[in-house]
Amino acid sequence: MIAIVKDSATPDQLDHFVSWIEGRGFKTNVSRGENETIVGIIGDTTKIDPFLLESMDIVDQVRRVSEPFKKANRKFHPEDTVVDCGHGVLLGGGNFQVIAGPCSVEGDNLWDIARGVHEAGATMLRGGAYKPRTSPYSYQGMGERGLELLCEVGHSLDMPVVSEVMDPRDVEGFLDRGVDVLQVGTRNAQNFPLLRELGRTNAPVLLKRGMGCTIDEFLMSAEYVMSEGNPNVILCERGIRTFETRTRNTFDANAIPVVHHLSHLPIIADPSHATGYTRYVRPIAYAATAAGADGLEMEVHDDPQNALSDGAQALTPTQFSDAMRRISLIRSAVEADLD
Amino acid sequence: MIAIVKDSATPDQLDHFVSWIEGRGFKTNVSRGENETIVGIIGDTTKIDPFLLESMDIVDQVRRVSEPFKKANRKFHPEDTVVDCGHGVLLGGGNFQVIAGPCSVEGDNLWDIARGVHEAGATMLRGGAYKPRTSPYSYQGMGERGLELLCEVGHSLDMPVVSEVMDPRDVEGFLDRGVDVLQVGTRNAQNFPLLRELGRTNAPVLLKRGMGCTIDEFLMSAEYVMSEGNPNVILCERGIRTFETRTRNTFDANAIPVVHHLSHLPIIADPSHATGYTRYVRPIAYAATAAGADGLEMEVHDDPQNALSDGAQALTPTQFSDAMRRISLIRSAVEADLD
Amino acid sequence: MIAIVKDSATPDQLDHFVSWIEGRGFKTNVSRGENETIVGIIGDTTKIDPFLLESMDIVDQVRRVSEPFKKANRKFHPEDTVVDCGHGVLLGGGNFQVIAGPCSVEGDNLWDIARGVHEAGATMLRGGAYKPRTSPYSYQGMGERGLELLCEVGHSLDMPVVSEVMDPRDVEGFLDRGVDVLQVGTRNAQNFPLLRELGRTNAPVLLKRGMGCTIDEFLMSAEYVMSEGNPNVILCERGIRTFETRTRNTFDANAIPVVHHLSHLPIIADPSHATGYTRYVRPIAYAATAAGADGLEMEVHDDPQNALSDGAQALTPTQFSDAMRRISLIRSAVEADLD
Amino acid sequence: MIAIVKDSATPDQLDHFVSWIEGRGFKTNVSRGENETIVGIIGDTTKIDPFLLESMDIVDQVRRVSEPFKKANRKFHPEDTVVDCGHGVLLGGGNFQVIAGPCSVEGDNLWDIARGVHEAGATMLRGGAYKPRTSPYSYQGMGERGLELLCEVGHSLDMPVVSEVMDPRDVEGFLDRGVDVLQVGTRNAQNFPLLRELGRTNAPVLLKRGMGCTIDEFLMSAEYVMSEGNPNVILCERGIRTFETRTRNTFDANAIPVVHHLSHLPIIADPSHATGYTRYVRPIAYAATAAGADGLEMEVHDDPQNALSDGAQALTPTQFSDAMRRISLIRSAVEADLD
Repeated sequence: MIAIVKDSATPDQLDHFVSWIEGRGFKTNVSRGENETIVGIIGDTTKIDPFLLESMDIVDQVRRVSEPFKKANRKFHPEDTVVDCGHGVLLGGGNFQVIAGPCSVEGDNLWDIARGVHEAGATMLRGGAYKPRTSPYSYQGMGERGLELLCEVGHSLDMPVVSEVMDPRDVEGFLDRGVDVLQVGTRNAQNFPLLRELGRTNAPVLLKRGMGCTIDEFLMSAEYVMSEGNPNVILCERGIRTFETRTRNTFDANAIPVVHHLSHLPIIADPSHATGYTRYVRPIAYAATAAGADGLEMEVHDDPQNALSDGAQALTPTQFSDAMRRISLIRSAVEADLD
Repeated sequence: MIAIVKDSATPDQLDHFVSWIEGRGFKTNVSRGENETIVGIIGDTTKIDPFLLESMDIVDQVRRVSEPFKKANRKFHPEDTVVDCGHGVLLGGGNFQVIAGPCSVEGDNLWDIARGVHEAGATMLRGGAYKPRTSPYSYQGMGERGLELLCEVGHSLDMPVVSEVMDPRDVEGFLDRGVDVLQVGTRNAQNFPLLRELGRTNAPVLLKRGMGCTIDEFLMSAEYVMSEGNPNVILCERGIRTFETRTRNTFDANAIPVVHHLSHLPIIADPSHATGYTRYVRPIAYAATAAGADGLEMEVHDDPQNALSDGAQALTPTQFSDAMRRISLIRSAVEADLD
Repeated sequence: MIAIVKDSATPDQLDHFVSWIEGRGFKTNVSRGENETIVGIIGDTTKIDPFLLESMDIVDQVRRVSEPFKKANRKFHPEDTVVDCGHGVLLGGGNFQVIAGPCSVEGDNLWDIARGVHEAGATMLRGGAYKPRTSPYSYQGMGERGLELLCEVGHSLDMPVVSEVMDPRDVEGFLDRGVDVLQVGTRNAQNFPLLRELGRTNAPVLLKRGMGCTIDEFLMSAEYVMSEGNPNVILCERGIRTFETRTRNTFDANAIPVVHHLSHLPIIADPSHATGYTRYVRPIAYAATAAGADGLEMEVHDDPQNALSDGAQALTPTQFSDAMRRISLIRSAVEADLD
Repeated sequence: MIAIVKDSATPDQLDHFVSWIEGRGFKTNVSRGENETIVGIIGDTTKIDPFLLESMDIVDQVRRVSEPFKKANRKFHPEDTVVDCGHGVLLGGGNFQVIAGPCSVEGDNLWDIARGVHEAGATMLRGGAYKPRTSPYSYQGMGERGLELLCEVGHSLDMPVVSEVMDPRDVEGFLDRGVDVLQVGTRNAQNFPLLRELGRTNAPVLLKRGMGCTIDEFLMSAEYVMSEGNPNVILCERGIRTFETRTRNTFDANAIPVVHHLSHLPIIADPSHATGYTRYVRPIAYAATAAGADGLEMEVHDDPQNALSDGAQALTPTQFSDAMRRISLIRSAVEADLD
């Protein structure tokens, strides 16, 4: 961390500032320039609040030099993390996986949807049983019975299943019922008690980016899970909140190569939520694949107009099957050995 | 809710669409224009997903006509809500209250801070015992002991106390220890299990706006609490996430008159988080007051540079006392009878 | 356009409102619902300010039903526009073109860069001669001499040339010197005198999206050019302003399929500005191609570290050549006939 | 400027980097830390592109230490700038002025509006003659005749007049006709040829913040005007583009104290555009005043529903007069001597 001290600071003030920092266990390195003095602060600065330093009278600006995330940082873990999702399905480090299924588990139509997506090449099955709906009056999901059905269907096809958990009290129940990958939704991306609870398990966590979170905050959320001992985090870009209103969210394609640069964790994309309209899901699925995503999560429903939630962004099994063939071609293009 | 049907739709397609809507229990009102046909959908449309309708082939656009929030809506409850915070302190409907105290309860220095803010005119005492920190390596709060100390100090001065709860499992403990007002932080603004849990109590809930939430979503979060039976919601504008980086957040002053227009719930402002720097806290406290806020929540610390969290945005007791005098003058200006 | 009238409006007030609208030359269609009354306003509503209607006492909300852009609207012009850029180069409607070259024309190194990008498959040459720099103290470009050199080099390779014009007084000079495609930069996306001036020529206009502009505003900027009689507009998504700071801008991949849905105009992408860092340019170029862009504009420099502007986001000729091969493979994947 | 060099850089690479910087005329100061090396770059770094340095292999991050704006910077000009707007009206440095009038000059109703706002206490008259409308089909203003009428009316009341100029070719005509203060609108905030043209005059420039511009970019736009020799810049916060849709823009109240901290230039606020709805204009005018603005610009119209532009956000003369009385009380509260 670096503090820029104002030109107007007296030598006494500077000494006092340096002593204050050193008194908190850091080393310093002072370098006087023409118009300002730079104080390097050396040590584990993740515990210092840069805003606090910046609020001091003689300090002009403070800049972090090292990222606040450690376990998620590629600098300290250069090789890609590969997450074992169960049933022989690995994700990351060159292993590309497609997670598909309905927004919500609704009943026995799940059997048909699952068979359809499996046949088309999806390797993992998704389905919500506890739904985070903006309105308390919207459909809230089937609950436990939904989880049981999801596991029954998915496992019969040897597909790991993914479902969203919102309440730390539910984590144990998800694992007991056999859910393979626990998803954290965008609205809980900074629900720290939930992240800690998941960090105490060993289950893969599919962590969606908060719609108002920077990439650094996204990685800090992963750090919460990892700091409790669970290294199995899969990141998911699902669109952020911007001023654009023609789509539900703005898909931040840049986040894919940026996360690959900063972190060793795998990152997948969710083109369904990133757009909000069926008609835009496939182009964005292709874009995410081409940008280097480690996988995709997509909503598929056999009868979108009668889906109990988010039918507007679901593909039909036929559309999904078509998309899978093109995704596979794009993967080959991205991975082609050009020499 | 209104659906705009494309010019290209055949009469059969339109009939089919209208039947589909009526089959779900709604009435319709079809009006053919020159270039498009408008289908009014009448009934409780809070359960319809507008994105779904919009995804249908013959539909061009869908627009909500009525707000999705009901209990929080001023249309159905024209008079201002006044929340009783305990110890004789009412907030809203002309009752302006200032909540002050340290970011975190740290120990016995709370006595001095509390006496200082009380003397300066604050009527409620704040202090965090469970802190939602972006980094898992930052100070996380004193926990239960912090709540006990907060209540002991606040109640000795006859001030209701406010503290943030993050985990639904902690709600009961907060109430048992005597916390008067339960605060929901910006990162949990859409943590629906937590909101529901609070909705099952009768305690005043101080709900901060999610930094990525629109005003409508903010009101829907209040609706979650209210839909469970608890009408005692105080809203708090604390800054939103924008592209500006010179301040921690962007204080959305507009939100104050907009919320007053849309809802009967009281809305206060938090100029400390809305700016992130002590030097900007007072001008924004004045701005919020002038815009018609029902109160303020401000961080005050006797020794900001040694605060365990958020010292950068805390006022000293002297600065706070100065601010309170000017806030009172501004209140008089805003409320002055001009005739 | 639809106005939702409040339940509380008296029949007299409603009549008065309807007369007021009809007095301005529109037809109306009134439909009374249970809780509100909907007034459809029929005619050329592009001249009505929806905010004005919404400010009237009895009006609750106003919603546009038809898009405000006409000439750029796919509804009235279903087939894709193909822009003839000169030298036999067509763009749009299945014709994919890559525009490459340095950020600024700097001197004779342009010959080598141009030959390099031409050999790698670029079909158009870009280079700035008048640079819109955030700082008045940054390099501002070679001016006229730069345009002449750009045309000399590009045309010797039979490549149309693209250069940014900022000042309406310069338009004629650009055309006189032989610039084929006039680019409007993001900061001038709503510089209406400039857009009108370009609309009075017949030259292809490469219109970059304003970094703070919605897709609708982007299309309205195209409408400004088209409304003066020039139909040759090429749109360019180059990233928008969001809260994310790890990249210079946020590339809005969604904008590509959305523009294809709303408009018949071709849309290309600029991955150099959309990311700001060389290391992210190629993944985003691939993503844009996969999402269905009609072309790309990319910065290439033989010695990025000594470029006079924007070297940070330039590819070397070798990197560009590698990228072009993969872009071609992705194009094939996207266009593959799957049946 | 500071460059953080990666731990993995070899001494040779570091030497090469340092030589490269020194070869461009800067001094350096290298300080090796445990995990990284910090290279201070000393000299006029406004001409260095930080993105370029950051793109170099051995460089991890680059941070500006000094602001890129100089003439607008309070560090080099501590006392407040006071702008002489003509007719004895000074703005800034404690001189608070209210600019009022219609969005567009429409005709002889200007006489009544002007007398009304003058009587209520406005000291400057505004009115648009060339209107930057999002749609080319909207009313575009009266042009020259509008300027003449504006000057005739304003000067008869001894009020300086303010009008927006969009085209650099029009600057001379504005001055010839007697316009006192030339306004640059939000869409032209980074129209550098226009800013330079205004910089070559000596007329006060009222510069509106670009709706997508950071505060630093806002000050760099002022720098463009000042760098050409014209120090008479008045800044105006008029709302920024965010995800919130309940208001036309989001008024960034924080910008007022932040600009006062960073710059010596006066800053006023435009609550009409910052909200977009008459009903929110007054609370935001009060908020801006309380936050320390040096003045306000407000739209007033005698018959808002028949205004040719922006009637939705105009106050009536009666509403304006009421607002002026409260603004005056708030000014007194903010400026009160508390001791």
